[in-house]
Amino acid sequence: MFQINDNYQKLPGSYLFSTIAKKVAAFSEANPDKQIIRLGIGDVTQPIAPAIIEAMHRAVDEMGNAETFRGYAPDLGYEFLRKAIADNDYKARGCDISPDEIFVSDGAKSDSGNIQEIFSVDNRIAVCDPVYPVYVDSNVMAGRTGTYDAQTGMWSNVIYMPCTRENGFVPEFPKETPDMIYLCLPNNPTGTTITKAQLQEWVDYANKVGAVIIYDGAYEPYISEADVAHSIYECQGAKTCAIELKSFSKNAGFTGVRLGYTVVPKELKCGEVSLHGMWARRHGTKFNGAPYIIQRAGEAVYSDAGKAQLKEQIAYYMRNAATIKSGLQEAGFEVYGGVNAPYIWLKTPEAMTSWEFFDYLLEKANVVGTPGSGFGPSGEGYFRLTAFGSYENTVAALERIKTL
Amino acid sequence: MFQINDNYQKLPGSYLFSTIAKKVAAFSEANPDKQIIRLGIGDVTQPIAPAIIEAMHRAVDEMGNAETFRGYAPDLGYEFLRKAIADNDYKARGCDISPDEIFVSDGAKSDSGNIQEIFSVDNRIAVCDPVYPVYVDSNVMAGRTGTYDAQTGMWSNVIYMPCTRENGFVPEFPKETPDMIYLCLPNNPTGTTITKAQLQEWVDYANKVGAVIIYDGAYEPYISEADVAHSIYECQGAKTCAIELKSFSKNAGFTGVRLGYTVVPKELKCGEVSLHGMWARRHGTKFNGAPYIIQRAGEAVYSDAGKAQLKEQIAYYMRNAATIKSGLQEAGFEVYGGVNAPYIWLKTPEAMTSWEFFDYLLEKANVVGTPGSGFGPSGEGYFRLTAFGSYENTVAALERIKTL
Repeated sequence: MFQINDNYQKLPGSYLFSTIAKKVAAFSEANPDKQIIRLGIGDVTQPIAPAIIEAMHRAVDEMGNAETFRGYAPDLGYEFLRKAIADNDYKARGCDISPDEIFVSDGAKSDSGNIQEIFSVDNRIAVCDPVYPVYVDSNVMAGRTGTYDAQTGMWSNVIYMPCTRENGFVPEFPKETPDMIYLCLPNNPTGTTITKAQLQEWVDYANKVGAVIIYDGAYEPYISEADVAHSIYECQGAKTCAIELKSFSKNAGFTGVRLGYTVVPKELKCGEVSLHGMWARRHGTKFNGAPYIIQRAGEAVYSDAGKAQLKEQIAYYMRNAATIKSGLQEAGFEVYGGVNAPYIWLKTPEAMTSWEFFDYLLEKANVVGTPGSGFGPSGEGYFRLTAFGSYENTVAALERIKTL
Repeated sequence: MFQINDNYQKLPGSYLFSTIAKKVAAFSEANPDKQIIRLGIGDVTQPIAPAIIEAMHRAVDEMGNAETFRGYAPDLGYEFLRKAIADNDYKARGCDISPDEIFVSDGAKSDSGNIQEIFSVDNRIAVCDPVYPVYVDSNVMAGRTGTYDAQTGMWSNVIYMPCTRENGFVPEFPKETPDMIYLCLPNNPTGTTITKAQLQEWVDYANKVGAVIIYDGAYEPYISEADVAHSIYECQGAKTCAIELKSFSKNAGFTGVRLGYTVVPKELKCGEVSLHGMWARRHGTKFNGAPYIIQRAGEAVYSDAGKAQLKEQIAYYMRNAATIKSGLQEAGFEVYGGVNAPYIWLKTPEAMTSWEFFDYLLEKANVVGTPGSGFGPSGEGYFRLTAFGSYENTVAALERIKTL
């Protein structure tokens, strides 16, 4: 008789954003007249930039023509895209990352869920608390996290690095030594980040204790301050300890287009074994490349026209971030983030729990946000709003919140 | 100090098709004047059908327009696509599969690699031998296969079901009881299949012994004989024992477009636990949906125009299959498959090993095929050619082979 992977049974509830979607659908059905404004899930609203649309049309035409049709893509992704990434995201920043250290994928969510596979189940992970739930959930599924304590919302074998207002939302080196350290910077959900000098300390720490850093740079394009690193490979020694995950979802609006990449430097080794070779094997065995059309869309992100259009798009969302932040401050909320990230992190009023505030906001203002507790126990009592709505909706949402 | 998943170290050599690609690239570089014809990897060559191209252009335009832009897709895939699949691939064949039992993905390779995750690592797998290598390789990575014996090419904890000319390439019930049975029918690489009555016996067997069948129906569109099932759910009782994987790669030429789906019936349970719920959780946590544009392409596969165009495309490839089969027979080869599948399986001449014949064919005829031994130990001494080339190339390849 077959048996299941019973680690799945340990997972409490459903995936955060599925739960939110269900709650919103139920509210919407019960209140068909209410205009809901969604500032919850980190989904973008601006259409894909014209330069990218043009590139996709061209690629679609190529696929319809026998002379230019493309079948299976190269395992790591097309050279044209990997080179554009290496040139623009690394070389231009002084990082020595070559195209063949870049693995193109269908998105950073897949990569951040799958990357743990190449590591031992005996490794102990450390995560910022709160953080994007996929890191912990994918490790639960793999059996790395021990048991869940519903009282504390914590896993017995996960090292939590609380990021709270008390420490300025900056993770501290944990007391116990981790094997794998997940860092999402700028952080989702707090919207806060650390300086390049602080990141260098993490790299030095990882190299010293023999830990690997899984560095999620999905929100890098929103960095506005000069002393923040755009890639972990700006730090000395990062190539021997860090894997970097990147997304096209937030800089180019690809949440429904699906494209991301992961950098595994060839110098990153466990003893004699190259993690680059392992990830290449995983990629070649359990994945078959991102669509050609979408890889051409990714290439267009780095064209001159694409860059100019996306700069405007990011400015648009960051204007929303500023609007939310100042609006919430006016309304008397305690607010963080929104400077180097499209997320605003607020303290819930009157000691409400995160989910209480979620329901309150949905019912009273018809605004959807994300409960901070969904990102980890230290997120309890906080709430995330995103800057990814339209400007008009963002302004309208804040007007509603101010009158509560 | 972090440790790796050392199951990866057990994997011999590299992924089959990566090895072939490297060999062909080396030959091509050394012989730039030679016109290589590729009948190796199962990659299609016909352009995407016009109805699908039109659908993708429309979807690209939608993504460029604020009113019609789509962000994150629903976890399981868009309803329009799941409904088209349910209606056409199931309802029309009398199979009671509902849209919410269908999980849209980026392709059957990902699904066939990932599906094992929801099962216990203690489960014992059974595979046809030879078969598509991803089933075994993904289970090696998960630690389910024991150790590899380079002498026999076999894993100590895998139950092999030899499919050879002695048994007409039809798998027999194994002596030891498996927990998970992988069936790829029509089979890749042998191109052979079994009747619906024979498949019913497998379903009955699985229900009796408490095994789950992972049924890979990627080549279903090539079935030409009336007594062969197009879905395992045509068999009584399949919904309590079978997961079905389907691809758009071979029926619609989506190898570079990337789309597939997996059916997990709600009745499929381990004790009280629904595998549907587990796969939904896996899908929601470690995957973020296939691109909207590509899901619209999938929908167009089921349009009247799409169906008519793809019928022609399949007929085109099956003419190639007939050409290869008769050509090889004329040349004195012992040949199988090619009737219900786009694959031709031939016995290597003069007791050559599969790789010897690969090198021989590449060097003497500049034709690329796939060594049978790459699909499992019982594939040794066999060789696979695919019908996915252009007709002109297929004819030319056979002319070359006949003159060897």
